[in-house]
Amino acid sequence: MPELRKDPIVGRWVIIATERARRPDQFQPLSPAPVADRTEACPFCEGRESKTAPEIFAARHAGAPNQPGWDVRVVPAEDPVLRIEGQLARKGRGIYDLMPGIGAHELIIEAPRHATNLADLPEAQIEQVIGAYVSRLTDLERDTRFKYALLYKNYGRAAGAGDLTHTHSEIIALPVNPVRLKDELHGARQYFDLKERCIFCDMLRQEYDGGRRLAVESRDFVAVAPFASRFPFELWILPRRHSADFTQLQPGERADLAGLLKTTLVKLRQALRDPPYNFILHTAPFRRPKHGAWHTIGDDFHWHLEIMPRLTRVAGFEWGSGFYINPTPPEEAAKFLREVEVVHV
Amino acid sequence: MPELRKDPIVGRWVIIATERARRPDQFQPLSPAPVADRTEACPFCEGRESKTAPEIFAARHAGAPNQPGWDVRVVPAEDPVLRIEGQLARKGRGIYDLMPGIGAHELIIEAPRHATNLADLPEAQIEQVIGAYVSRLTDLERDTRFKYALLYKNYGRAAGAGDLTHTHSEIIALPVNPVRLKDELHGARQYFDLKERCIFCDMLRQEYDGGRRLAVESRDFVAVAPFASRFPFELWILPRRHSADFTQLQPGERADLAGLLKTTLVKLRQALRDPPYNFILHTAPFRRPKHGAWHTIGDDFHWHLEIMPRLTRVAGFEWGSGFYINPTPPEEAAKFLREVEVVHV
Repeated sequence: MPELRKDPIVGRWVIIATERARRPDQFQPLSPAPVADRTEACPFCEGRESKTAPEIFAARHAGAPNQPGWDVRVVPAEDPVLRIEGQLARKGRGIYDLMPGIGAHELIIEAPRHATNLADLPEAQIEQVIGAYVSRLTDLERDTRFKYALLYKNYGRAAGAGDLTHTHSEIIALPVNPVRLKDELHGARQYFDLKERCIFCDMLRQEYDGGRRLAVESRDFVAVAPFASRFPFELWILPRRHSADFTQLQPGERADLAGLLKTTLVKLRQALRDPPYNFILHTAPFRRPKHGAWHTIGDDFHWHLEIMPRLTRVAGFEWGSGFYINPTPPEEAAKFLREVEVVHV
Repeated sequence: MPELRKDPIVGRWVIIATERARRPDQFQPLSPAPVADRTEACPFCEGRESKTAPEIFAARHAGAPNQPGWDVRVVPAEDPVLRIEGQLARKGRGIYDLMPGIGAHELIIEAPRHATNLADLPEAQIEQVIGAYVSRLTDLERDTRFKYALLYKNYGRAAGAGDLTHTHSEIIALPVNPVRLKDELHGARQYFDLKERCIFCDMLRQEYDGGRRLAVESRDFVAVAPFASRFPFELWILPRRHSADFTQLQPGERADLAGLLKTTLVKLRQALRDPPYNFILHTAPFRRPKHGAWHTIGDDFHWHLEIMPRLTRVAGFEWGSGFYINPTPPEEAAKFLREVEVVHV
């Protein structure tokens, strides 16, 4: 019998289609893994710093800005979806609201060599990438025009990646809060009002008990297959300790997160034949009530990284309704991933 | 300058990327148009009624049930995502909610001949299809276990269609309300509380004034490119008169809607080289306050059919955030579609 399950945070129902359950080897990749072609033309490789706009940030062991010697480098997108210059001016037009497309669009180049997959990088390098994320988010928060920064990664063409295969992630800083974040904040706030506890912490406590949906664990983090997963092998990485804001990572936690993220990505690659995937960071918005309210948003939200392998085409009724069919129960996905032996390349 | 626009109903912001505006001929189809292959094996063609489960409904000019002589035929899905038998039993499991996957999953076979595209059918045939939609929704509403029925169409592989190319649409009846419908009902209700007017009616009044986003018009219906379109060439078909419930279509309106739907689909096909698309009906939920509240849901909701051509891959940050980038301003999409001359095949 298929099962209807409800996401406790946003109230989204999904069908877990147990009878047509699909194992990892039953998924055909929707697009082939990126190959390290055309490296001679890659503008992201060390030594070709002049092929991008001047860097916004770099973690360097040597060299001057826009010269070799960096480990992670952040540059503005060549064809940004939003413009950094200008004043915010919300306007009404009858019943509609609009504003100029002010924002920031940055690319985080995750390695100086031409690697195509974050999973291939050493843990110490991934730790540097996490450091760059923290640094950029912290800096963008200072721009009072912005309310949120979306940090995400598209790996593989079916996940929306373009022609640049050199491993990178993206940040889009926005003068508005994305609607799905608002839904999450709202749901988590409602739960807190009722229980005076963080819903994500409660979820984790329940997941520890039995552990059927725990896929990967480290000292400070877990990768969980959520109870109401929308997609096969969907995973959420959450800190074990309550924390609303990704930028508040402690230094020791960064290394631990790097290790867990690498293990998780390597396991997904091995289990699912290097599938296209997206990840997206859900963290506290920049502008939030810090004082005055009887509790602050920091109490009721819990940052997490959502990883979504692209294994099935999403059909029309899922788009139009927000109602998903998932052919792989999360318990089976987690079990399978626990059992994958990590082969480090 | 790109523009940020807010959907007035659900509060979703989109980026309309005016500078990278893409015209219809700049989109590559994400998948080829379905071809009428393997007709000799098609279980949906007239004369092969025994290849499907017994029909649930048929509009017939002749013949007995499950015999030739039908114009539109509705059968249960062979591999349904939900099961029709069983009792609803909501259960809690810690902080989670679940229930057995009870529901209905039906296929509406839109023509007895092997046509692959609804746009190819005569208007009178499309009117019969609309009649079948009304009939099935009315019947499913009588099953008190169900709260909503999703009526949708997947055309082309990139839109989630499977191997059966014979033109058909699907209905999934659910014991829960889909989250996106809840968001719409909530937004429309909030507006009604403030204004005591239907937000969709107000939107239409504003669209009539100037008409820049009106793509196709008929006596009783309009196809509008919404102000905050998520996708290039997204269109919403709405009745001009206020009506919350699709099943309350008047007989004369059915013919008018059939004509408008055909013209809209033919124009999309001509403009965009027969693109994959989805449409999904947004109508009032089955169980709604009819008495007692100082206004009923019928006052503040307005049914509509959302048509989403699949022209761009949706990237990770759009999935994870509900925040979309649309490279074609709806004003340009509507203008282009108005100017397409309809060639009836």
